[in-house]
Formats: sequence, C-alpha cells, structure tokens
Amino acid sequence: MRFHENDDSLALHTDLYQINMAKTYWQDGIHERKAVFELYFRKLPFANGYAIFAGLEKAIHYLRNFHFSESDLRYLRDDLDYNGEFIDYLANLRFSGTVRSMKEGELVFGNEPIMQVEAPLAEAQLIETALLNIVNYQTLIATKASRIKEVVGDEVALEFGSRRAQEMDAALWGTRAAFIGGFDATSNVRAGKLFGMPVAGTHAHSMVQAYKDDYTAFKKYAESHRDCVFLVDTYDTLRSGVPAAIRVAKEFGDRIHFKGIRLDSGDMAFLSKEARKMLDAAGFPHAKIYASSDLDEYTIFHLKAQGAKIDSWGIGTKLITAYDQPALGAVYKMVAIENEFGEWEDTIKISSNAEKVTTPGRKKVYRIINRLNHKSEGDYITLWDEKPEEEKQLKMFHPVHTFISKLVTDFNAKQLLHEIFVDGELVYDLPGLQDIQAFARENLDLLWAEYRRSLNPEEYPVDLSQDCWDNKMRNIEAVKEKIDRLRK
Amino acid sequence: MRFHENDDSLALHTDLYQINMAKTYWQDGIHERKAVFELYFRKLPFANGYAIFAGLEKAIHYLRNFHFSESDLRYLRDDLDYNGEFIDYLANLRFSGTVRSMKEGELVFGNEPIMQVEAPLAEAQLIETALLNIVNYQTLIATKASRIKEVVGDEVALEFGSRRAQEMDAALWGTRAAFIGGFDATSNVRAGKLFGMPVAGTHAHSMVQAYKDDYTAFKKYAESHRDCVFLVDTYDTLRSGVPAAIRVAKEFGDRIHFKGIRLDSGDMAFLSKEARKMLDAAGFPHAKIYASSDLDEYTIFHLKAQGAKIDSWGIGTKLITAYDQPALGAVYKMVAIENEFGEWEDTIKISSNAEKVTTPGRKKVYRIINRLNHKSEGDYITLWDEKPEEEKQLKMFHPVHTFISKLVTDFNAKQLLHEIFVDGELVYDLPGLQDIQAFARENLDLLWAEYRRSLNPEEYPVDLSQDCWDNKMRNIEAVKEKIDRLRK
Repeated sequence: MRFHENDDSLALHTDLYQINMAKTYWQDGIHERKAVFELYFRKLPFANGYAIFAGLEKAIHYLRNFHFSESDLRYLRDDLDYNGEFIDYLANLRFSGTVRSMKEGELVFGNEPIMQVEAPLAEAQLIETALLNIVNYQTLIATKASRIKEVVGDEVALEFGSRRAQEMDAALWGTRAAFIGGFDATSNVRAGKLFGMPVAGTHAHSMVQAYKDDYTAFKKYAESHRDCVFLVDTYDTLRSGVPAAIRVAKEFGDRIHFKGIRLDSGDMAFLSKEARKMLDAAGFPHAKIYASSDLDEYTIFHLKAQGAKIDSWGIGTKLITAYDQPALGAVYKMVAIENEFGEWEDTIKISSNAEKVTTPGRKKVYRIINRLNHKSEGDYITLWDEKPEEEKQLKMFHPVHTFISKLVTDFNAKQLLHEIFVDGELVYDLPGLQDIQAFARENLDLLWAEYRRSLNPEEYPVDLSQDCWDNKMRNIEAVKEKIDRLRK
Repeated sequence: MRFHENDDSLALHTDLYQINMAKTYWQDGIHERKAVFELYFRKLPFANGYAIFAGLEKAIHYLRNFHFSESDLRYLRDDLDYNGEFIDYLANLRFSGTVRSMKEGELVFGNEPIMQVEAPLAEAQLIETALLNIVNYQTLIATKASRIKEVVGDEVALEFGSRRAQEMDAALWGTRAAFIGGFDATSNVRAGKLFGMPVAGTHAHSMVQAYKDDYTAFKKYAESHRDCVFLVDTYDTLRSGVPAAIRVAKEFGDRIHFKGIRLDSGDMAFLSKEARKMLDAAGFPHAKIYASSDLDEYTIFHLKAQGAKIDSWGIGTKLITAYDQPALGAVYKMVAIENEFGEWEDTIKISSNAEKVTTPGRKKVYRIINRLNHKSEGDYITLWDEKPEEEKQLKMFHPVHTFISKLVTDFNAKQLLHEIFVDGELVYDLPGLQDIQAFARENLDLLWAEYRRSLNPEEYPVDLSQDCWDNKMRNIEAVKEKIDRLRK
C-alpha cells in the first residue's frame, strides 16, 4: 500500500482518459488552445422544483492547488509509461484558465451552466473529473437538505449522518452542503472546526448501557455537562427513560439546563405525544423533544400530519447519502474551442437521446426577475454577446415545446455566472458559510410557492434566447450535412 | 474558512456526542475501564445473499494515526468550551485498545460482528463514527461490485464512477472496494497510484469535438498512443464513428494495437450487434466492444439476454454510489464492560423493534465448513469461551425461528475475527490488494450457488450457539425485571 505517499496531490484524481487526451493534444501541439466547457445537469434531482448549488469552495481549493507532485509524475512515468517530455510538461502545469461560476447557495435548474471553464484545452480536460465529483455531490446534498428544511419549517434541522455517509469527504462536505440548504447544525465536530458550523449532540445508548440504567447515566451526564438532552429509549422509553430524565431534571434544578429528551426508535408519533404530556405534567413545558430515526422529508411530513410533538429533527442516512437519488448527473461539455487563427468555433455533441444534444457556444445565464412582484419569471440563456439586461421586453419560449412562450417586460436580468478565476488568478472572495446559507434562503424567496413544494412542483422555465436556439439548430444541421457528405 | 488548517487530524471526524460521553466518563473516572463494542449490520444490502467486507486498510490507517492535533484541541477548548484538564487528557490520547476484525474480502452476513473493539471506554467511543463511516461505505461497494461481477462473469468489469461518486474519498476508496468485489480496473488514476490497481480509459467525446470529426480525432489519438479504443458515438455511431474507427485501424495497421471501440449511449443491444458485424467484416474479429451508459447488474443481465455483443463493461454511477441502496446500516454496539472489580459484565440494548435488541457478551464468529463438499453450512456465533472447533457435532438453529435447526458433523470451524491491534500495537500484516481480491473470490466458492444468485437468494444461516442464545434471554429478562421493580 502506498496511500500515505506524503506528497500526494489531487491532480491524479481524474479519469485516465483525461491524461490520455492531454497527451494527444500536447503531442499534436493544440494543448494550449483555449476551449470552453460548461458544467450542468439535465434533470433536477428528487423531482424537486429547484436545486441549490454547492461545491465552489472545494473546487476553488482544488484548482488553486492543482499540480502534479513528484510521486504523481513518477507513477505516470514508471507505471503508466508516459514519456519524458510530456512528463516535463505536466510537471510545470498549474491551472491558468478562467472560471465563471454560480455562487454557492444560488438556485440552479436543468440545462443551464453552473460553471464555465475557459482554459487551455489540456487543462480544462484534466480538471473535469474532480469538478464533477465535487459539484455533483455537494449540489445534490444542498438540494436534499433544502427539501427537508422546507418541511421542517421553523423547527430545528440537525445533520446526523456521518456514520452512514459514503466515506469521510462525504460526511464532511455533505454536512456543509446541508447547512447551505438550510440545516441548523451538524453532529460532525470536524465540520464544526473547519467550517465554523454549529455542532450538536448529547449522548448515545452506549452511555446508558455503561451505567446500566437510565437514571444513573443521566445523573452522571448532568454532573459533567450544563446543557442536557437525555436519550430515553435504551430500555423502555415511557416506563424508564422519560421518568428518569424528569427525575434528574428535578434533582438538578438550576444546576443544569434541561433542554429536553431525544427519541431514536419506536413509534415517534405516539411516543412524542406521550412524552410531551409527561414533561408538561412534570413542570417542564419548555423541554424540547428531539427525534431521529431514519427521517426524511416524507416521514417528517407524515409525523407532523399525525400531530407528533417534535421540536427538533435529527436527520442522517436519508440526507447525507441523498438516499432516494444518490447521484446528480451533472456533465461537463465542450461548447467552443479556438481554431488555429485564435477564433472561437462552436462545438456540439449529437445523440440519439435528444436531451443529450449539447447547446453550442459560450453562453451567459440570466435570472429574469419581475420588478413588480420580485418573483422570478425564469432563467434565460444567451450567447456570449447578447445583452438582455438592455432589452425592454423578452420573448421566453420553452426549449422543447417551443410554441409555449411568454413576453416579459418590467424585469431585471441578473447574471448568474461570476468570475472566480481569471487567467489562473483567484479573483473571488468566498463569503462565510452563514452568508451562503442566508443567500440561499433569499434566493428561495424569489420562487413562487408552486416551484418550492416537494410534491409535483411546477416546472420552472429555463429558456434559450432566440439567437442561442437558432445557433444550436444551425450546428445540428451542419453536423448532419457533414455526415451525409461522408457517406457519399 | 479554516479547512486548510495544516495540522488537521481525523480525531474530530466524530459525532459531538462521542466527545460529550468521553467527558462524562473522564469526569466520573471510568474512561479507562475496558469495554467491548461490536460492529455489525442487521440486513444484507440489495437483498443480496452475502456481503463482502472492505474498509480494514483505511480503518487501520485511521487508528494508527489517531490523535488530537493542536488545532483540534484549540477548537474544543475555545469554541466548544471543554475545560483544561479534559483537554490535557485528549492531548495525550492515542488508540491503545485491541481490535479484532474480519479480513478484507471475507464474506459477511447480517447480525455477526465484523469488527470487535476492546478498548478503554472513552477511546472505544471516540472511534465509533469514523469506523462506521469507513466500513459502511466500503463494504457496501465491495458487495455491489460483487453482485455486478457475478453477472459480468468472465468478461471485463471496469469502474468508471469517479465523477458521480459522493465526493473524493468515495471515488478513491469506492473503486478500491470495487476491486475487492471482483472488478478488473478503474479509471481513477490516483487509485492506480495509491493502491497499485490497474487503470483503464481512452478518450472522451470532447476529443472528437475538439477535432470536429471522428476520423481526425481517432487518427490524432493513434498518433500519440499505442493502445487504441475509439469512442464512436459523438455524432452518429454506425454512420460515422464505427467507420472512422475501422478506417484508422486499417491505416495504422501494426503501428497501433487496435483494441476496439466504446459505446456510451443509444441502444446498446442493437448498436453492439451492428458494430460487431462491421468490425468482423472489416477484418477485426478480435477488436472488443466496450460499453458504458448507466449500467448495473440488471441492465447487464438483460443486455446479455438480448445477445448484446459486449466484451467489456464500464460501470459508473450505479456502482460507486450503490444507487439502489446507498447506505449500509452497520451499527457499533456495546456488548460488555468491565465493572469496578475488573470483571466483564454483559450489556444489552432493548428495543420495541425486536431485531434491534443487541446480543450481549464478547463473542467469536465461526464459519462452519463441511469437510466433505467444502461448502459452508453457515456461520456460528459463540460466547468468548466456547470452542466449537473441538466439538464433534453442532446444533445450528435459526435465531428468530428457533425451531428450525440442523445438526452438523464433519466440519471445520474457521474463526473469522483476527487480531489487528493488541493493546494499541498493530499486529497484522495487510495483504496486497490482488491477494484480497483473490481471497474474496475463494470465499465465494464456499457458497452454494443458491446463496450467490442476485435475485431471491436463499437465506444463509447465521446462528447463535445455545449458550449465546440463553445468555441473551437471561439479559433480556433481567432488564425487564429491573424496569418492573423501578415502577413499583
């Protein structure tokens, strides 16, 4: 095992074909031609009405530190047989391109660029895998968290999933993404340290087992902690756990802050209502009831409908793995490349699956916001040189059913892609995590409730400008003609 | 953002409640009492007939390096208000316990200990979250990979999922787990470097886009690589891609090794059969057809049933995220603890969900192998002091439906838990990854085909010894009596 090579970098965290292509470009001398790749997903996850972008901070960290280390180069040379001069080229490589991206916490929808990389061809290629790896997961979790938080409402949502996350980075970056999506705190202490997130947690069943009974365990906990939430379901929730919690709360009085009890198994609706009555009767109407046990937006919705008396929701597995759809299918597609004269040329990928045909050309993405009601009319994708912000009226039409259209006036056109790196230089100040969360919340307010509901939301419009649409059609025709010529 | 604290350790990669409990134990002076925790899952994932254990290498790495760094301690003190002496205790903490574990590549079933930690109470508690985080994911993926490989059979299975993995650690450790489960190679170059795995990959659609047509792109690739697999579906698979691949293969002749073509979209059954005919007719009967496109064991099974001509299967999203069940629910439960006299006492957790009631006591796990046919009769869990290997005959009975039983004679009882750490010292030599894969394959040969099939496999017996069962019943009764007494 060599996995503690202490100079390990993330440059090799890529698919082999990226390096193979870089080799071809380098050998052919086109590796430094500028190309534009756009990162986007086609379909919203969870059949949700929106997604929330997350992943930029990690992506920036990755790009700033992008380089091949000694052990990386040695491996490529000795084990994979790449030759000397190509290795020299890689040895000196740093990311020198321009990256435009949505801000973390921005709402994002299908088929619109979330990130746009304009960089020397070989570089743009080498970073694809890592960028997708980061953005796919973090955006997925921010979105799942937001769905759950929409149901939790003003109550507290806690992320408790580290033990079930798909390895360590997922636990760490997943809980950060959950915070962006609206969660209040995490159980992961390292996330608390690294990201400044609030951390939460009390004790587990094992502590009650160690002391053999609820009462002794709670008493020992109360002797060593001021804030106390007692987990009451180790042996018997209503007959042993809750009475012991109440007894300790009474005995300790002001010496502790008895915040409440936690339920982790059994019938949450029934147990929470019974426990609430017991706490109230004992004179603890302000003690909260924390619940955790395979929760997600569906179970929470139903527990609330049954009148469960739960104040704080601990959510693990279903959130941190995005259990009902554990992957976002974002892709990274070349849309333009410089030709030998330094002029931009469009590129396209054709597919027998119509939704997989790419939209050629460097683009901009606008959110069209109605000035009168401050709600969003939809997103509007243009070619690079268009200026919808200067138009008085926009015709927005559906990118599949093109006969569906509307005329929009009295709008602000807000550009969604911001410069992050310019020619390899970081030009963007990362906001604090609390600000990112607030930004996501403000963005959600731009949406009509019909786009926000978790079941069968309305489809939010993401439309191409007329020029962008016409350009796509021209490109498709050109490829068809070329293939027809080849066959003759 | 503080996430590049350069002394960051993984000791804080734990749930806050672990630290809170450690505090209580420390303050109460019982933090160094030995406790035994067992790590196990209750239900096999994917309704599969077996699971394959993976995660030990990373777990060893984590335990060997377990310590709180300066910045960890500062965070606990300054941000989370832990007090001075407790911080001093943590500052000096290293893992000093004993760990017994199955070997990676071992078959594992529900409700049997995969790992057993016997350590000072506070230490055993602090490492829970990370161990579960590692073992849950890696075991899940090794198992999913094995399911897929069972369907792929003697053909080649390639792991291509990095871009869709749940963050970077999942891409890296997931592909290692896939290799343990029987996969042949990965696209992730870093996994190749760190684990010595074979890596695979050729080029993407973007290269064909960069050169504007298939023929030019394949030619440029052939000029810079000896091994060539051409991706043929960028514009039109049968009209442009395959003909261009054949043309380049003919033009380059012996100067390249034309390994074949790759299909990444469209109807794989139809396209592969047509492409096969074209390759054969052109004189390339040995050129292989590689396929990738949202594959898993179900789609591969059906493609084969349709006579698809595919030689090599690239599997991404569905494998690396364990798409149909993205979490394994392994838990880590205290089964015994030393009392104040240094004697072991059993501990138990009761639950209204019968399957969540733990099995008390330090245990051993045996695989009972029939000497005549070399197939496994089932697994047999005993209390620590039992010696089934010295018995002539074993009564194995179902742990739920206890009236279902069998008598086994002529068996070998193979112990599955091996010492990894003894009192903090690593005493285990990690095998190479190829050996682990071979070990998993040999283990599978112990199973009747009825346990291996992917749909509705037979239930493999995991039985408690009579003593272990009786002990569990005694413990349940004792708790019930205690609660009844409390209520009087």
